[in-house]
Amino acid sequence: MTKTHPWLAERMTRFDASGIRKVFELGAKLKDPIDLSIGQPDFDVPDELKECAAEAIRRGKNGYSLTQGVPAFRERLQAEIAKRYNDPQREVFITSGTSGGLMLAVLTLVDPGDEVIVFDPSFVMYDALVHVAGGIPVYVDTYPDFQIDVGRVEAALTAKTKMIIVNNPANPTGVVLNSRSLRDLAELAQRRNVALISDEIYCDFCYDEPFVSPAEYNPRTIVAAGFSKSHGMPGWRLGFVHGPREIVQQMLKLQQFSFVCAPHPLQWAGLKAVDYDMRPAYAAYKCKRDRLVASLRDYYDLVTPGGAFYAFPRAPWGTATEFVTEAIERHGLLIIPGGVFSRRDTHFRISYAASDETINRGVEALRKLARK
Amino acid sequence: MTKTHPWLAERMTRFDASGIRKVFELGAKLKDPIDLSIGQPDFDVPDELKECAAEAIRRGKNGYSLTQGVPAFRERLQAEIAKRYNDPQREVFITSGTSGGLMLAVLTLVDPGDEVIVFDPSFVMYDALVHVAGGIPVYVDTYPDFQIDVGRVEAALTAKTKMIIVNNPANPTGVVLNSRSLRDLAELAQRRNVALISDEIYCDFCYDEPFVSPAEYNPRTIVAAGFSKSHGMPGWRLGFVHGPREIVQQMLKLQQFSFVCAPHPLQWAGLKAVDYDMRPAYAAYKCKRDRLVASLRDYYDLVTPGGAFYAFPRAPWGTATEFVTEAIERHGLLIIPGGVFSRRDTHFRISYAASDETINRGVEALRKLARK
Repeated sequence: MTKTHPWLAERMTRFDASGIRKVFELGAKLKDPIDLSIGQPDFDVPDELKECAAEAIRRGKNGYSLTQGVPAFRERLQAEIAKRYNDPQREVFITSGTSGGLMLAVLTLVDPGDEVIVFDPSFVMYDALVHVAGGIPVYVDTYPDFQIDVGRVEAALTAKTKMIIVNNPANPTGVVLNSRSLRDLAELAQRRNVALISDEIYCDFCYDEPFVSPAEYNPRTIVAAGFSKSHGMPGWRLGFVHGPREIVQQMLKLQQFSFVCAPHPLQWAGLKAVDYDMRPAYAAYKCKRDRLVASLRDYYDLVTPGGAFYAFPRAPWGTATEFVTEAIERHGLLIIPGGVFSRRDTHFRISYAASDETINRGVEALRKLARK
Repeated sequence: MTKTHPWLAERMTRFDASGIRKVFELGAKLKDPIDLSIGQPDFDVPDELKECAAEAIRRGKNGYSLTQGVPAFRERLQAEIAKRYNDPQREVFITSGTSGGLMLAVLTLVDPGDEVIVFDPSFVMYDALVHVAGGIPVYVDTYPDFQIDVGRVEAALTAKTKMIIVNNPANPTGVVLNSRSLRDLAELAQRRNVALISDEIYCDFCYDEPFVSPAEYNPRTIVAAGFSKSHGMPGWRLGFVHGPREIVQQMLKLQQFSFVCAPHPLQWAGLKAVDYDMRPAYAAYKCKRDRLVASLRDYYDLVTPGGAFYAFPRAPWGTATEFVTEAIERHGLLIIPGGVFSRRDTHFRISYAASDETINRGVEALRKLARK
C-alpha cells in the first residue's frame, strides 16, 4: 500500500480495512439481505443488566473510574481468576473491550522489528495491531483443519519472535483447538520465553467440551477476554486482561495514557454480568451450530466448528471472492470472503449469530450456490 | 527508566506514571482530604441526558455502532463543524474520549524518530503518546506566562518535526492562549507542513473571551474534543475528532482495529448533549475561578487562568514537590506538583473543579502555606 497522504506514519500503510468494507458496501445496496456476516450475537443484554447500567448512570457513576476498573468489578473477576489459576502473580484489570486489551498487550510488548506469530486464518485485528506497534506478523498456516501444528510454530520461531497470538474458540473458523496442541503451544512459548497472548473472547461459546486456556499450562500467558459476545454487549466496550503482575502493571500505565478507563457506568453492570447465567443463550447457539452444520455438510467441505458462532467452509468453486460476490449479488447473502482473514482466498465465513429464520434463508441460498 | 521485565517494549521505558500516583497514594492515606487535584468537573451529567442513555440501553442500542459513530450523532456534529469552518474537506468522527482521539492522531501520523513539539508544561498524556508511537517529544518552554512564543516554536522545528500538539484552554495552567499567537502558530504549522493537533477538551470553559481554534487559521488542523469535561461525563468516553478527510479516514481505519467504537448506547445521549445548554455550569465555574484567583492573588505568583478549571501558581518556597508534600502532610490538601507536567519543579496545579466549601478550605490552607 502506498501513502494516501504525505503525513501518514509508515505503520498505516501496512494494513488496510478494505476487505470487510467492500462486503458491507455491497450489502448496503441490498434491500432485504440475508445477513450472515455479523461478528456479534443477535441477542440483547439481559434486562437485569440493562437496569443495572441505567441505575449506575442515575446514581452518578459518570466520572472516571480507576484505571484498572471499578474495584468491586475488578475484585470479583480477580476472585474468579484466583480460583481458576491459583496463581498469586496473576492479576486482572478492566479494559475497553477485548480489543482494547489486545492493543495494550501488543503495544506494551512489541518493539519495531519484533516478530509475532499469528495463525492463518485469524481475526483481522491481530495483523493490524502488530503493524501498529511496528512488529512483523509471521503467519503459521492452519489449513485444512485449522488446528495448530506446534511443530510449525516452533519452526517459525526466530531470535526476533516476541509474541504468539492465539484465539480459541477461533474467529473466523469457529474451531476449538484441541487441548493437547494448546498445551504444547503453551509449553513451547514458556520454554522459548515468548509472550503468549490468548484471545478468549469466545470462551463461553464452547459447545462440545469444556473450555481450556493456555494459561493453565503457562503461567505467563496474557489472557484477553470480555463481555461483548458472552452478554450481548459489544457496544459497551467491556473487557478484561489477566496476566503476570509486572506486565499487567505496564499495560495499566499505557491504559492511563490512552483508553483512560472502560466506560464507568457500564462497568457496574459488568460486575452483575459475572454472575448472570447466560447458559441458555449458549445452548441456543449450540443448536444453531448443529442445524447449520447438518444443513451444509452434504454441500460444503466444512470443518465442524466447536465454538464461537462462525463456520468457515471452502468455496465450492472459484475463489472465495468470486463465490462471495455471487452470493451477495445473486442471493443477497452477506458472508465474508476468507481473504479478509487469510493469505488464502479459498474459504468464506458464515456467522450464525442470527435468527433461525435468517439462518434458514442463508442455508437455502448456500445450497443453491453450492451447485453452480 | 530501566525495563522492569525483559519482555517490555522499549517505548514502555520512556514514560512513567509515578508522579501523579505518588500524590494519589499520599492522598489515599488521608481521612478528609481537601481534594483540589481532580481533573474532572464536580457536576454530574444532566438528568435528561442520563435518561437518554438509559433509554438507549433499554431500546437495545448495545451492539457495535459504526466505527465513525452513530450516524445521527456524527451528522449533528458534522453540521456544527460545517457551520463553523465552512470547509467541505473537514470531517468528524466519534472517538472513545478525547484521549482516544489523541492516541489515534499520534499513531496515525508519528513514525519512530519523528519529532513532536509539546509545550512545557502540558498534559502528561502528550509526552506518553509520542513515546508510544516511537516519536521524540521536543519541549518548548512557555514559562512564566504560559503563552506560546511562536518564534521559539519555529526555532525548535527541524526536518524531523512531524507534529505540534497544542492544548487551549490548557491543562495544567488554565491559561487561554492569545488569539494572535494561536494564529501565528497555526500559520507556522501550515507553512512548514507540520501536523497541528489541537486538544480542545476545555473549549467550553473559556471565561473571558470567545474560544478560538487554530483550525480557523489552518484548515489542516486536527481537532480533538469531547463531552467529558463539558457535560460531566468523563467516564462515558465520548469524544470526537475533526480534520482533513484523508487523515480522518486513516484514523478511522486505526479505530476499527483498536477502540472499535465509542460506547454505543452512550452515544445517543451524546447526540442530545450537543444541544443541551450547559452554560450555567460554565458560569458557575467562572465564579469559582474568580473567587480562587481573588483569594490567592496576594499570596501567590499566579497567572490568571482564563479557562479550564485549573490554576498553576508558583510554589512560594522550596521545590514544588517539597511544597506539595507539605500541603498534603500538614494540611491534607491534595494538589499536583508541576513536575508531573513539566521539566520544571517550580509550580503546582490547583483544580477548582470542586465544591465551594472545598475550595474555601483549600484557600485557607494555601494562605497558611504561603507564609512558611
